[in-house]
Formats: sequence, C-alpha cells, structure tokens
Amino acid sequence: MQPSDMQPSDMQRTIAFFMELDRLKGVERRNRLADGSRRENTAEHSWHLGMAALVFAAHATEPVDVGRAVAMALAHDIVEIDAGDTFAYDQGAELASKEAREQAAADRIFGLLPPDVAAHLRELWDEYERGDTPEARYVMAIDRMAPMLLNLAEGGTTWREYGITRDRVVARNGPHVEPALPGVWQHALAQLDTFVETGTAEG
Amino acid sequence: MQPSDMQPSDMQRTIAFFMELDRLKGVERRNRLADGSRRENTAEHSWHLGMAALVFAAHATEPVDVGRAVAMALAHDIVEIDAGDTFAYDQGAELASKEAREQAAADRIFGLLPPDVAAHLRELWDEYERGDTPEARYVMAIDRMAPMLLNLAEGGTTWREYGITRDRVVARNGPHVEPALPGVWQHALAQLDTFVETGTAEG
Repeated sequence: MQPSDMQPSDMQRTIAFFMELDRLKGVERRNRLADGSRRENTAEHSWHLGMAALVFAAHATEPVDVGRAVAMALAHDIVEIDAGDTFAYDQGAELASKEAREQAAADRIFGLLPPDVAAHLRELWDEYERGDTPEARYVMAIDRMAPMLLNLAEGGTTWREYGITRDRVVARNGPHVEPALPGVWQHALAQLDTFVETGTAEG
Repeated sequence: MQPSDMQPSDMQRTIAFFMELDRLKGVERRNRLADGSRRENTAEHSWHLGMAALVFAAHATEPVDVGRAVAMALAHDIVEIDAGDTFAYDQGAELASKEAREQAAADRIFGLLPPDVAAHLRELWDEYERGDTPEARYVMAIDRMAPMLLNLAEGGTTWREYGITRDRVVARNGPHVEPALPGVWQHALAQLDTFVETGTAEG
C-alpha cells in the first residue's frame, strides 16, 4: 500500500515475517505422528518442542532459563523454510551442504524482521547451532527425544524405511539426550530395547 | 514397566503428557494455510502464535511479559485435544457447550502432569480464558489476527464457505485486535477492505 520508494515500517516487516513463517507448516520431516497417520511437519514439531521445553525443565541436569529455551525451540528450525529438513541420519553430501544452506536461510528469513528482533532470534538460533549453553543442550536433547518417542509409538516405520538400526538410534541420540535429560534417556532406551525384542514399545 | 501398584513417577507423567500433546496435530481448524493448500491444524497454529507473541511485543499497547505470553500461546488450545476446535463464528449450541467441554478437557489433560507443572499450565490457560491481563489480551489479539491474515492471503475460501461477511469479520476480530495491536488491526482492516472491493488482498 505504501509508495515504492518508502521503506516498509517495522510493523509491516513483522507481519511479512509472520506470513513467511506459515511456510514451515509445509516442510515435511521423516518421522511420523505417534498414531502413524502421516509424516510430521516442522511447524507442529516446533510447537511440540516448545511445550516440552516448558514441562521437562525439572528433569534437566543443568538449570535452564525456560523462557529462553522455549523461544529457542520455537525458532531453531525456521531456516528449514528455505533449507528443508535434513534427516537426523543423513550422511555425506546432504549433511555437508546443510550448514551453508541454513546460514543463508537464517540471513534471509530473520532479515525480514526489524533489526533488533532479527538480532534476538538470530542469536537464539546461533546459540542452538553452537550447542554451548545449558538451554541449547536442553533443547537439543528434546529435539532428539521427540522423534525417538514418536517413532517408538508408531511402531518404527521410519527406522525400517531407512534401515536405521538400534545401535544407530543410540549413537545418534544418546550423546545429546542422556547428559541433559538422563531420566528421559533411560525411559526411551528401555522402550527401544523392548521394541527391538518384541516389536512393541511399552510406556 | 513398573508394577501396577506403583504410581507413575513425575518423569513418566511428563512423558505421558508429551505423548498426549501429539494428538493436537490431528485437530483441524476451519481456516486454511496462507497458500490455501489445506486446513490448518491446532498444533501448527499454536506454534505460529508462539512465534507471533515473540515478535509483535514492540507493537502492543500494553507492556507484556513475552515469556509468559509465548507459554500462554502454546498452551491455550491444548484442550482441543478433547473438546475439538470451535469455529470463531459459531453460535448457538456449539458455542454454549464449549466452556463445559473445555473445562473437562483442561482437568484431564493438564492433570496428566505432575501437580506443580499442571497447576502452572492451568493457571496460564485460566488467565487466557478470563482475558484479564495484558498477556491474555495480547495473545487473544494474536489468536484473532492470525486466521484473519491467513484467510486474506489464501483468498477468503473459509469466509465464503461459511458465508462470513466483512462486517462479521470486523465485529468478531476488531474488539480484540484493535485495542491490543492497533497497527496490526489497521493493516488487516485495510487488507480486508481492499479484498472486499477487488477480491485480492494487498500486503
């Protein structure tokens, strides 16, 4: 509505960012919902992690700033709007190009916002990527826990589909989940081993 | 895994709640995504509101505790796991039974959690329902803004489908969005009026 030689206002930039976010609902992940009905999308996954960050804090080994962890959980996958989802078990070229694709996506997407808000979200995203704070370790643990529990609940379709063995599940997720949320890891590992033995996960 | 006479631990209760949350991804709302491809589900909607609560605070008329608003946005529709989504323009029996259904749902779903975490989420939900704090008013404004902007972006399919006129859109959303986020309301209303005149929304 503004003449083309005017800069968009902060409010217009914020609305443009909000509208752009809608595209994350169309980014498909590999894992399925707990009922197996369909694959999960990254927006609903991010909501699930944000809720988890709210309720699992008492079980974390390090004290965490819950508000910061929740915001990090909500924002950490926004780059997938441009960069797509990289499967946790991908190796090789797909994984090698991930960082460059995601950095460019962060520049573009957070750059839609007014500078101060953009800087805040970018800082949260960078911190998550570095993984060097209690909040980043906590959110990363939740990010690994979530698909593992969903895969167990729906019967391991995704693992079978991609030939992911029990040992790869442990090697991929254990180093993140166990130190940050040891009780959750113990629970998930027991479920995994029951699942491997009997083909059925038990709560 | 525990003998049946043992109470589940706080960790087991938290995991049970986390798994129950997955069902919100299967609750369908009336409005469509911005690209019109499908209807939105309540989990991804809640993520979108949480992100909006993070980035729109500078445009709110009242100062808000952003962390509290984000948590409220994430949790405010969890009751729809049991109670289903009530269309913003519903009247009559559906609307009349909404409160009782949602109260029962809040009792059951938040009750899956350990008591202290359950009480915290219930408090956030009650506060949102009462609408009597700056955070509740801010989140409610965002909750009304979001489907309005999505409906405009995808061309008003949902409004046409249910025969919702321009005046009903204004009467339903204006009283919440305008006082809390006046700049956003001005923008959305201008889009709506362009849309009514020309059939195309302009950013």
